[in-house]
Amino acid sequence: MNTLLLDSGDVDEYAALADVIDAVEQAFGAFERGDTQMPAKSYIDLPQYNGDFRSMPAYLATDEWDAAGLKWVNVHPDNPAEYDLPTVLGTMIYSDPETAFPLAILDGTMLTMKRTGAAAAVATDYLAVEDATTLGIVGAGVQSYTQLEAISEVRPIEEVVVSDLDEDRIERFIDAFGDEFDVRAGSISEAGHCDVLSTVTPVEDPIVGLEDVGNHTHVNAIGADAEGKHELADKLLQAARIVIDDHEQCTHSGEINVPYHEGVLTDDDIHGEIGELVVGAKAGRTDETGVTVFDSTGLAIQDVAAAHVVYENARADGAGYDFGLIDTER
Amino acid sequence: MNTLLLDSGDVDEYAALADVIDAVEQAFGAFERGDTQMPAKSYIDLPQYNGDFRSMPAYLATDEWDAAGLKWVNVHPDNPAEYDLPTVLGTMIYSDPETAFPLAILDGTMLTMKRTGAAAAVATDYLAVEDATTLGIVGAGVQSYTQLEAISEVRPIEEVVVSDLDEDRIERFIDAFGDEFDVRAGSISEAGHCDVLSTVTPVEDPIVGLEDVGNHTHVNAIGADAEGKHELADKLLQAARIVIDDHEQCTHSGEINVPYHEGVLTDDDIHGEIGELVVGAKAGRTDETGVTVFDSTGLAIQDVAAAHVVYENARADGAGYDFGLIDTER
Repeated sequence: MNTLLLDSGDVDEYAALADVIDAVEQAFGAFERGDTQMPAKSYIDLPQYNGDFRSMPAYLATDEWDAAGLKWVNVHPDNPAEYDLPTVLGTMIYSDPETAFPLAILDGTMLTMKRTGAAAAVATDYLAVEDATTLGIVGAGVQSYTQLEAISEVRPIEEVVVSDLDEDRIERFIDAFGDEFDVRAGSISEAGHCDVLSTVTPVEDPIVGLEDVGNHTHVNAIGADAEGKHELADKLLQAARIVIDDHEQCTHSGEINVPYHEGVLTDDDIHGEIGELVVGAKAGRTDETGVTVFDSTGLAIQDVAAAHVVYENARADGAGYDFGLIDTER
Repeated sequence: MNTLLLDSGDVDEYAALADVIDAVEQAFGAFERGDTQMPAKSYIDLPQYNGDFRSMPAYLATDEWDAAGLKWVNVHPDNPAEYDLPTVLGTMIYSDPETAFPLAILDGTMLTMKRTGAAAAVATDYLAVEDATTLGIVGAGVQSYTQLEAISEVRPIEEVVVSDLDEDRIERFIDAFGDEFDVRAGSISEAGHCDVLSTVTPVEDPIVGLEDVGNHTHVNAIGADAEGKHELADKLLQAARIVIDDHEQCTHSGEINVPYHEGVLTDDDIHGEIGELVVGAKAGRTDETGVTVFDSTGLAIQDVAAAHVVYENARADGAGYDFGLIDTER
């Protein structure tokens, strides 16, 4: 038996976003129904290299399929400047739950971008106004591209306002999407007054205030990924309907972790988990809803769901490289 | 940058046992000195498939090198009968700790056999009589081969007595080693009266009694890998100098887990961890020592240490398949 190797290009090609969004939505639903297993992320901290590794194993079952796998991922902020490598690198092992055979090994870096975009799209679908045509992006780094790609699958996005301190990043973003959308550079406040806003920055202290967003803006807070980091001002969070992906992860290292630990936000301020919206246990946006915020930390089941899509699509198309990693005759 | 793919044959060829034994010994020493990071194994239990997955991340630093990685491994006992696949399948990601780049992906199945044999050899080197020429094997399955291969690196083994309920397994074992050693089939008691004994069975209840071993036999207890499993009778353990690999793992799922939880054995009955012998904090065998037992559960740092050896040896020899898993230009 062979293991299918899928590189960055394969993952990009076969992670059809409509499929990944659907799979991630099913994964959130399975999580809420208790049809997942997702041990807490294990961390290896390497302060001598200013970096860490995270191990993210998971299993999920939907009505139609089940899947298992593990993503081994890191955050090494010195990588771009010192080694000309991305800060985040990922490797995903996708396994058959029935036998544990490793069906595929995928580039987890591209996969992370796809599943993160897909999660924002699922949340946007439940929380943004129906006729959302404008999208703001704060932080035009590598993770921002799939925000636009995925969100435009669930809303008729026409105009995009992109805000970043780095003009090169803005230029690259406009180059990438200028043909398909009306994309322009703008301030944080201009981005925030779009129907949907995605914040995708590594900042430690908030850069988006309540006054920077519209009355009915839905905000996908993507950037915060560690204790002490947040992108949105407390007043914005206090005014918003807050939906999280996972209570443990969000209160530990998500957008809400700082105000939650300071007591500025409590569990009463959290509307629910995205899975509760998916299964219908909690409401999404209604006519009365104002600002909404989705706190996305990224769940291991998202990676497994996305890997499932990539593997199935790539196998069906005969793509990837078949490798006899494990000699099953021994 | 490319990731080196190393299949079962590559791992077999480049896991030179003398090197792996040395690296595993260094890993045990690093563990004792606090120069390792090894989060507890994460389990995903899938009773519907009678199986489980385990995630084993680790980092270790020796004076000369450091290494990081993760093994994703499973136990699916129905695999051989139902799917013609091994019970245990492993995939190892070996990463550069400085940047987190995945340097190699290795067959973790063969790697597990090598590092398990190497651990037994390290323990044998500290605990067996110096002139040990006889080795007993109880359980001649796939994990038993590296017991002989590794232990014969540290002791002048000439005679081997192999005991198994399955005559085909005995025949295969004799076929494999008959040219190099004087190998014969025997009872458990005959195997146990060798200078060194390795027990490598999946039994739940003890099959080796105190009367089955010699006065100075060193026993490597390899088989027990889950709560409720043990291979050695309580009386044998009570009479022996017991060395473990890790207190948490051994009391949870190692050879001693059952008597420890029944109160038959306490911490006072545990001589120490193998790392304490390596760093000289605890004594190995002395003239007065009788029966000794090494409780080996298998540590994630053993996998990382073994992967380090395989990767360095394979790279130096230009072996393996270079694959551009992650596009670092994106």
